[in-house]
Amino acid sequence: MPDAIPNDSVGLVTPSTQHFEQSLTLESGLSLPSFDLVYETYGELNAKKSNAILICHALTGDHHVAGYHSMDDKKPGWWDAYIGPGKPIDTNKFFVIGLNNLGGCKGSTGPMSINPATDKPYGRDFPIVTVKDWVLTQTMLADALGIDSFAAVIGGSLGGMQALQWSIDYPQRVKHAVVIAAAPKLSAQNIGFNEVARQAIRSDPDFHDGHYYEHNVVPRRGIKLARMLGHITYLSDESMRAKFGRELREGKINFNFDTEFQVQSYLQYQGESFVDRFDANSYLIMTKTLDYFDPAKEYNDDLAKALEKTDTRFLVISFTSDWRFAPERSREIVKALLDSNKSVSYAEIKANQGHDAFLIPNTDYQNVLSCYMQHVEDASQ
Amino acid sequence: MPDAIPNDSVGLVTPSTQHFEQSLTLESGLSLPSFDLVYETYGELNAKKSNAILICHALTGDHHVAGYHSMDDKKPGWWDAYIGPGKPIDTNKFFVIGLNNLGGCKGSTGPMSINPATDKPYGRDFPIVTVKDWVLTQTMLADALGIDSFAAVIGGSLGGMQALQWSIDYPQRVKHAVVIAAAPKLSAQNIGFNEVARQAIRSDPDFHDGHYYEHNVVPRRGIKLARMLGHITYLSDESMRAKFGRELREGKINFNFDTEFQVQSYLQYQGESFVDRFDANSYLIMTKTLDYFDPAKEYNDDLAKALEKTDTRFLVISFTSDWRFAPERSREIVKALLDSNKSVSYAEIKANQGHDAFLIPNTDYQNVLSCYMQHVEDASQ
Repeated sequence: MPDAIPNDSVGLVTPSTQHFEQSLTLESGLSLPSFDLVYETYGELNAKKSNAILICHALTGDHHVAGYHSMDDKKPGWWDAYIGPGKPIDTNKFFVIGLNNLGGCKGSTGPMSINPATDKPYGRDFPIVTVKDWVLTQTMLADALGIDSFAAVIGGSLGGMQALQWSIDYPQRVKHAVVIAAAPKLSAQNIGFNEVARQAIRSDPDFHDGHYYEHNVVPRRGIKLARMLGHITYLSDESMRAKFGRELREGKINFNFDTEFQVQSYLQYQGESFVDRFDANSYLIMTKTLDYFDPAKEYNDDLAKALEKTDTRFLVISFTSDWRFAPERSREIVKALLDSNKSVSYAEIKANQGHDAFLIPNTDYQNVLSCYMQHVEDASQ
Repeated sequence: MPDAIPNDSVGLVTPSTQHFEQSLTLESGLSLPSFDLVYETYGELNAKKSNAILICHALTGDHHVAGYHSMDDKKPGWWDAYIGPGKPIDTNKFFVIGLNNLGGCKGSTGPMSINPATDKPYGRDFPIVTVKDWVLTQTMLADALGIDSFAAVIGGSLGGMQALQWSIDYPQRVKHAVVIAAAPKLSAQNIGFNEVARQAIRSDPDFHDGHYYEHNVVPRRGIKLARMLGHITYLSDESMRAKFGRELREGKINFNFDTEFQVQSYLQYQGESFVDRFDANSYLIMTKTLDYFDPAKEYNDDLAKALEKTDTRFLVISFTSDWRFAPERSREIVKALLDSNKSVSYAEIKANQGHDAFLIPNTDYQNVLSCYMQHVEDASQ
């Protein structure tokens, strides 16, 4: 392994594409004639095929969960801190799969893909997908890889919602669900923030009703605003205070509208850099996926009832300073699991980074996850 | 008094304009050759001129604090619940003044006013004003009205910041400061939200670098987004949950980007209606006024030191569910006052409406304010 790559990394990895030449009917009633899912794997599938772990990504994540694509990569996959040899999700023991969800913009079929009906990109015509749809397509990927049952499905934020949905829709195919920094459904405030982000994108004159690809533009202004706003909700007031406070870029106020405070500079940078790495239509779809998630709905708003039939065992994790999906929201999940007599471990991790904490190295979090993964390993033998 | 106007209202009121034919040098170093302040008054100034109360407005408030402008008005002034005969700020006892601050868009000189140097609206050339500038212009209005000293200066949010600044800059001219739902300075998160709002306005193609009046347009998209976002920060997660929850407009999900959840509808309505009643340049300026407010800065970041020389007595009020300027922020003010041995009363009012609670009728809040105003009255005899 090259010198520049740390020893506890999964190393250089290459994404694969699984093509599904079959029509897929979505929860909306719409269907796709065929589709691709891009995925990566780390570690080896054992002979019993009992050590597979599925990692589900959050709003703007993708299949590149761990390792490096090339020696030039500045950063590894988005959850590299937690996946690798000797790490909490130990690739010496587990066969780990990360995928880009349907509707995404990192290789799986989504709004940027060519719509065979028109020979043009789907754009806004790409159907809105749900967490349930994602989980269905994930079972299809599992089938293609010969995996009957996952040792665990794991995810943070929107990824945690997928883990929860797995336990409801396919309890026989998932032994453990690790639901991190999630919520059983979005609050009005959560939906409100999503709506502002969507309005920012959709009201950008370069949006062209979602068919901006054909105009060779992207709704830069809108996607930048959406990301700036998103970022505030990913951080905590406390972490922003610690990171930026009221620090001024030039040490003084200039009485103009230039970027004066460091926090302005940070948010603008985050917004700008997002424009080049994420598709606006995918962002619109995935915020809707979040808004729609509500597994208790078809059980008369009773989450315990929704979880009644599952045999999956659960680890639920929340972070003290997370106000996007606060610990109270995780406790709703825990309470529903207890009410339906399920096996659940719960840890509220002290962390000041807000919602982002689920992505960041933290000893308590690592220990809790490592410890639970030991149980998962024991159960997968 | 007409039947339609309640008995405890100040009734029909008419704004006045005070013209200042003198150059005003602002904190920025820039100056205005002359300016107007629009104001309203309720109640009667007593012979000793000792019963005057100044009400300072928040970000999007104005001089129309109480009463009605015409019999057709659907709503009274923005703090009508607290000002009137027999109300906490009792106009049978006090002479109450509300003004539109400099840089505003409701009649006082601001970006929409004609710049005498160009004979065109100031637009973006209107200087950024500070809380200190506002307080200075408020002393000039007091001079014009023959008021040497206010029995109290009162305000919520950005209005509370003005009351605090009064006690620091003109302690001999303000006997009591009532600082409601405020903070001693904005946090990085507060500035972050303001920055997203400003970017939304400034990146709107109809903004024309602040000279949109000349193009006969307004940056509708931007100002709408700014207001939608602002609104989320004015409400609490709890109150949004109670008010909207996940209620759907049509009782079902439609798998499209139309307005589906009630909260989307509410925010869009709030955003749309704001476009017609507030000027984008004023919004930009006033969010900067907020960002810049930091009275402790010139005292080595020691608020207690900043307040050391004041003789003003204080009432500080916060609201439990306010996360824009949370109770912790009010406690910082209270602690600084205690550290500098000042007279301060503090009440943390239980209210679930978030930051907006400072505008809404609430028995505890009314009682605390009424009780304190009795002290103010006694001191003003």
